Amino acid sequence: MKFCSNCAAPVVKRVPPGDSLERWICDECGEIHYQNPKLVVGCVPERDGKLLLCRRAIEPRYGYWTLPAGFMENAETTAQAAMRETFEESGAQVELGAPFTLISVPHVNQVHLFYLARVRSLETGFGEETLEVRLFDEAALPWKEIAFRTVAATLRHWLADRKAGAFAFHAEDITLR
Amino acid sequence: MKFCSNCAAPVVKRVPPGDSLERWICDECGEIHYQNPKLVVGCVPERDGKLLLCRRAIEPRYGYWTLPAGFMENAETTAQAAMRETFEESGAQVELGAPFTLISVPHVNQVHLFYLARVRSLETGFGEETLEVRLFDEAALPWKEIAFRTVAATLRHWLADRKAGAFAFHAEDITLR
Repeated sequence: MKFCSNCAAPVVKRVPPGDSLERWICDECGEIHYQNPKLVVGCVPERDGKLLLCRRAIEPRYGYWTLPAGFMENAETTAQAAMRETFEESGAQVELGAPFTLISVPHVNQVHLFYLARVRSLETGFGEETLEVRLFDEAALPWKEIAFRTVAATLRHWLADRKAGAFAFHAEDITLR
Repeated sequence: MKFCSNCAAPVVKRVPPGDSLERWICDECGEIHYQNPKLVVGCVPERDGKLLLCRRAIEPRYGYWTLPAGFMENAETTAQAAMRETFEESGAQVELGAPFTLISVPHVNQVHLFYLARVRSLETGFGEETLEVRLFDEAALPWKEIAFRTVAATLRHWLADRKAGAFAFHAEDITLR
């Protein structure tokens, strides 16, 4: 951020009165430009015991496999975001279950939320963000080509919970190694 | 948003190529300014069966009672945000339990997350956002003066779960009446 989105004057970074963190401030119009973490929302789409993954057609992690997920938009609910992103990235219509994992990733200012989900229908078309969509048996999961640590953690929880016979809600943090 | 925070040129609202939603776009430098929901994170601080509430010293809902909660900051985890906001607004140091409620509020572009929590210590000092801090018995809860519907919903879940003898995780949406 270099300029005020309200009045176009240059902004400065300073701790506002009564605050404890540096913010981008406009001394011309007084606007304080807060920056906050973003929610990335998706799901774990299951069909006949297999899990649906998408191979990314975009950076970061071009060519790697991910669960369908993306940035939540204004004016939608987390469940709507999960279903929208899943359809956009995989062509799958899903029936959502409960929230399954909630993972903070503070070094990139993100919180990832994945729902349990069942694939109801799978179209052959999907968005430009995806190279390929595939259903994987547990034994075939491409562990070395998983795009993000939140996705790998979510897959591990899903497999462990299925083995245990009950799906629980998991909250955790992923920090820099 | 009126001007590009990157180059100070005026922005226009348009659907970018490959997108489906209108965004603020800078035709001068090409920057697309995405706007996304914010996370409001807090907790339900319990001590000896009583619940801690804060009376708001700021708008919106000046003078009404709320659970301690606030906007999550960059570079922190949801649990850190919950503890920080609780201390800032109430002076209470808490031991966090599990995430308890996750409530989408799409008409204000927010997602509210409340943790279970136990009060470990309660200082007499608290921030400028609070007029008063008080521990309430169930019978004394100020239902008609609760600041936000997400707070009322969270309190209702807490009381119902305590009565049932087990605290579960609750995800729901609050939409315009």
